[in-house]
Amino acid sequence: MKTLRNVAIDCMGGDYAPDIVIHGLAIAAPELSEFRFTLFGDSNLILQLADKYGLDKNIIDIVDSKGTQVDATMKPSYAIRNALHSSMGLAVTAVRDKKAEACISAGNTGAYMGLAKVILKTIPGVQRPAIASIIPTQKKPFVMLDLGANAECSATNLVEFAMLGDAFAKAALHVSDPSVAILNIGSEENKGCAYVKDAFVNLKTSNLINNFTGFIEGDKLFEGNIDVVVSDGFCGNITLKVIEGCAKFILSEIKQAFLSTILSKVIGLLSSGFLKNKLMNKLDPRMYNGAILLGVNGVVVKSHGGTDHIGFANAIKFTSEVVRNNLVNNTTAIMSQFVKDIALES
Amino acid sequence: MKTLRNVAIDCMGGDYAPDIVIHGLAIAAPELSEFRFTLFGDSNLILQLADKYGLDKNIIDIVDSKGTQVDATMKPSYAIRNALHSSMGLAVTAVRDKKAEACISAGNTGAYMGLAKVILKTIPGVQRPAIASIIPTQKKPFVMLDLGANAECSATNLVEFAMLGDAFAKAALHVSDPSVAILNIGSEENKGCAYVKDAFVNLKTSNLINNFTGFIEGDKLFEGNIDVVVSDGFCGNITLKVIEGCAKFILSEIKQAFLSTILSKVIGLLSSGFLKNKLMNKLDPRMYNGAILLGVNGVVVKSHGGTDHIGFANAIKFTSEVVRNNLVNNTTAIMSQFVKDIALES
Repeated sequence: MKTLRNVAIDCMGGDYAPDIVIHGLAIAAPELSEFRFTLFGDSNLILQLADKYGLDKNIIDIVDSKGTQVDATMKPSYAIRNALHSSMGLAVTAVRDKKAEACISAGNTGAYMGLAKVILKTIPGVQRPAIASIIPTQKKPFVMLDLGANAECSATNLVEFAMLGDAFAKAALHVSDPSVAILNIGSEENKGCAYVKDAFVNLKTSNLINNFTGFIEGDKLFEGNIDVVVSDGFCGNITLKVIEGCAKFILSEIKQAFLSTILSKVIGLLSSGFLKNKLMNKLDPRMYNGAILLGVNGVVVKSHGGTDHIGFANAIKFTSEVVRNNLVNNTTAIMSQFVKDIALES
Repeated sequence: MKTLRNVAIDCMGGDYAPDIVIHGLAIAAPELSEFRFTLFGDSNLILQLADKYGLDKNIIDIVDSKGTQVDATMKPSYAIRNALHSSMGLAVTAVRDKKAEACISAGNTGAYMGLAKVILKTIPGVQRPAIASIIPTQKKPFVMLDLGANAECSATNLVEFAMLGDAFAKAALHVSDPSVAILNIGSEENKGCAYVKDAFVNLKTSNLINNFTGFIEGDKLFEGNIDVVVSDGFCGNITLKVIEGCAKFILSEIKQAFLSTILSKVIGLLSSGFLKNKLMNKLDPRMYNGAILLGVNGVVVKSHGGTDHIGFANAIKFTSEVVRNNLVNNTTAIMSQFVKDIALES
């Protein structure tokens, strides 16, 4: 019998867990026949929901999580001391113990980052792991990081994120020489906060990143000229969520525009099919759900906390792609080259 | 003869100045018959462009600016020492000297803020002026500040911005009791950077803002449930520009979707009229061009540096509304009440 690849899922993390987690898995699993799933959480609830959503019980194992669970308000420092046996902590531990090739959670981002850092340890050259995601644009997608693992960052952190992003873009986007820029409020060298300016100088003088292009402003992100955009986790998270909110707002305005006159209603009906296929699906943030924690020893995927079953199903599919294509190991290998370069320089 | 109201315009600031400035004024002026405009900059260039764009010379006065001009890379500290007689500095000075009721510039934001602070002085209760703008949402518009005047902020600055935003929303949006929130990466009290958490505690315990609702995340901005969103100038500027870039991206995707099949091309032609009127005009960032510097003694309006003539024309129209409705004086009067409240508390 063929051994299936295994993914660990925290069933209790996120605003609408465990319902959307099991519902999402029921949607995603039929397309992922080479995977099994180990589900961490309340086994009674999980079994009830598996029945409700018709999830095949032959492809899951359930592990009851015990003791303190992670909630939305728990501090990372508290989580790493008290929640190692939570559904989130156990899912991460399964990756460390090679019982799973990846873990997924929609729970508290800071706690997840803290647990992953403590349980899996960071890879050489990385002090702080960062959350990265792939974002679509007019031309080509780009990698953006950090999306919320580190609210406050130093210039050194930003330089590390630039290296991690460069390595991930090489592995995931197959770009041999990714262009890397730092998010800022101006493109001139003297603009922005001190840590952003220091990171600029460091990257410019060190030549660590072959194709470092300087600063990028928020309105240029979607032009698709940059492969990697680096930010602290505070601005990065706000940027990602503003994009989500803005897309949702504009799509609702389009619907409204089509309802405004009788002619437009008719046109709306005629065009609803292709608009849905060509536009709504492309711009729906749920289609891009699934961000990855870069810089730890293992595949740690974060789903948006407020996502629904469609979004969680996409986070599972994203995880399967990361595992299939060995993206995290490839990123780590490229990072080790950076570490050698730094050692040679100093 | 009726005395006309006067607006001072820096003709040399911005990526495409003076061309778009004079072109924009030629578009806006016919609608603003109670205004005259004093134009600061290179008089030869201004006169040439006035001819080119058919600007009525009877409604303008031109003042040649001398010496060091402000460019995009000039530091605020340098500008306030060396560029008082630049087109930007003279436009601000005209407001101080009551020769104009407002000034407009599309030039270097930091330098403009610095010059305004030094020339006009801040109003009582304000250490740092902030740039505010009114942003549309699904329900009602909201005031957002700071949009880039202050890259690095303390908790005290954010508290001041909350008061300024509250006062401006009362004056400009006619909301008697504006709801005020701080932009953050989570809605829970323990999320975010230290200065954001400190500002939260300060506003929560002080009761300065009657309707302080706590934190707001980026994806909730467009739901239209909040009247004032407070941020440091770094995140605020990035948020504003991400909204612009995102809107531009989605509108181009809509156009693409309409060009994808023969059926959709026909539908696109049929619907282009109402889509343009109902949607494109509403979402076009140029329609909302014009942000205001709150916290100084005078009306100081900032146009987007990269805008075109349509955008600059809208910045002029926005300025005329601010002047007509006495918004800055009204904001200052409300701020003085905050200052009394603070004095009573301490």
